[in-house]
Amino acid sequence: MENPQDEKEEREHFLRIVRAFKYYKHHSLEKIARTERYLAKLPNHHRELLEHYTQHLSALKTCIENNDKIIRRIIKDVSTIFENSHLIDSKVVANTPSAIPSSADMEKVQATLKQFVRDWSEEGKAERDACYQPIIEELEKHFPESIRSKREHRVLVPGAGLGRLAYEIASRGFTCQGNEFSLFMLFGSNFILNRCEGPNSLQVHPWVHQSVNCLKSEDQTRGVRFPDVNPSCLPPQAQFSMAAGDFLEIYVDKNYWDCVATCFFIDCANNVVAFIETIYKILKPGGIWINLGPLLYHFADMVGEDSIEPSYEVVREVILGTGFMIE
Amino acid sequence: MENPQDEKEEREHFLRIVRAFKYYKHHSLEKIARTERYLAKLPNHHRELLEHYTQHLSALKTCIENNDKIIRRIIKDVSTIFENSHLIDSKVVANTPSAIPSSADMEKVQATLKQFVRDWSEEGKAERDACYQPIIEELEKHFPESIRSKREHRVLVPGAGLGRLAYEIASRGFTCQGNEFSLFMLFGSNFILNRCEGPNSLQVHPWVHQSVNCLKSEDQTRGVRFPDVNPSCLPPQAQFSMAAGDFLEIYVDKNYWDCVATCFFIDCANNVVAFIETIYKILKPGGIWINLGPLLYHFADMVGEDSIEPSYEVVREVILGTGFMIE
Repeated sequence: MENPQDEKEEREHFLRIVRAFKYYKHHSLEKIARTERYLAKLPNHHRELLEHYTQHLSALKTCIENNDKIIRRIIKDVSTIFENSHLIDSKVVANTPSAIPSSADMEKVQATLKQFVRDWSEEGKAERDACYQPIIEELEKHFPESIRSKREHRVLVPGAGLGRLAYEIASRGFTCQGNEFSLFMLFGSNFILNRCEGPNSLQVHPWVHQSVNCLKSEDQTRGVRFPDVNPSCLPPQAQFSMAAGDFLEIYVDKNYWDCVATCFFIDCANNVVAFIETIYKILKPGGIWINLGPLLYHFADMVGEDSIEPSYEVVREVILGTGFMIE
Repeated sequence: MENPQDEKEEREHFLRIVRAFKYYKHHSLEKIARTERYLAKLPNHHRELLEHYTQHLSALKTCIENNDKIIRRIIKDVSTIFENSHLIDSKVVANTPSAIPSSADMEKVQATLKQFVRDWSEEGKAERDACYQPIIEELEKHFPESIRSKREHRVLVPGAGLGRLAYEIASRGFTCQGNEFSLFMLFGSNFILNRCEGPNSLQVHPWVHQSVNCLKSEDQTRGVRFPDVNPSCLPPQAQFSMAAGDFLEIYVDKNYWDCVATCFFIDCANNVVAFIETIYKILKPGGIWINLGPLLYHFADMVGEDSIEPSYEVVREVILGTGFMIE
């Protein structure tokens, strides 16, 4: 049983993220309005030269309205998605006060919209293939069906985001659990995995907030359809789950997993050694860790956050020192 | 004659930038100290695995001390570099109160150190060649010596930064003026152009603050020597000057320049149309504008700053609409 203080903090955190999603439309339209107010102050002959830009700002507003429709669906009934959702009264969610979300949280809402494209659209395929394929191939190589049924192999994907890598692993027959800490991603993955209405049924405008380095105005307003596959169409025997929470807190059982697959994950630690140590502990003897991704330490330069940022050379030493052998 | 209010603001701005340079060492060492305090709290077996990282933090401190030596030389006698330097009492500079500089200003100090490498080191040559060579070649093509003496051609380089492009143009015989608004860059260019002691006499550690995505710890501590050439060794007849201030305010004389060469500049406007219009006005009939660089609009998402961010498609329309022909 959690203590009341933890429950209160958890509830407040939950409500903060809901508020951020809800604030998306107002925040985004207000930014356009600021640009329009500045445009209105420019000399007439500048405004005439910028006629197509003025039209473009109107198109951006339509894109934002469309994105907001997706967002409304993401946060609909969000209060019911967790086991501990008794903490969240849906009326409280509906009437949550309008404290202004931080710009960091607004960027995370935008990042969630873009992540649908990366993880669940035809357009994201090249990016996914570059990151997920090497992991999946390694996995298949180490655990061929001939040894024992794939389903008997437990694979954990920490930092699962919108769940595509974990889904792909599960759809190949492995027992797979995705783990994610961010509520932005958890709201998104709940939506995509559980409320989907068939391939390419939805459209997002992922680049609408990316106003720099556009060749054409249309580059910014372009819509992308998703999901490329129906995420709820896993084979009936597939073993797939998502677990919400802090990797270091949740995964304490030793010798449990056959494989931990991390993709763009280990640099999200305050202390990368703790991640490496935990991965080692929870793996069965003979189990494998497959990792892909940069060392773009998430907490470097983040105010109020502890962080160490060792080079790959040092991380490699830590990996070997923990007991891993590197292949 | 400027009014007293303007003078006061100018003086305060100047002192703010001096303070930022002076604060570099304290700010940078404090960041390392925070990491060391966090390290000290980690379990013993984590600290043992991170022994080389602990040594690396010590090496970083030495690099910061070395960078600070360059910085001390940059801001030495900085109060005398401008014509209006009567505004700045050098004693005031020396005893300027220690209001804490913003992290944005600290990043600009770090960017200035890196810019020495990009503009004035052997290591920066590939990057310079990619950006400056196409501009210089275009210039030489349009104004071959045969038409009239190169020296009779006036070339303006707005956004001159640490002055290398303007220097290269002047060293090829053209009359060239660099213009720069940022005091960070102006302090740096004054140092490099007027106080230099010969090739490779100085060393900076430009990557010391870049703790992410390092393969080896040494990637972060590596020193780079500069300048690759002696910036004060222009041919005796060379016509080269640097002008401090806002491009839109300084350049109001019509039909004056034979060429305006902009490199990574036009996206630094609140209103890019005003830049394009000014470039058109100050060029002589038949004069040319050579431009290279992205549309990474500087003021996009900057709080309290006006900004428009048209795509290249629209910028091109504006360029043509202003009266330019694009070759």
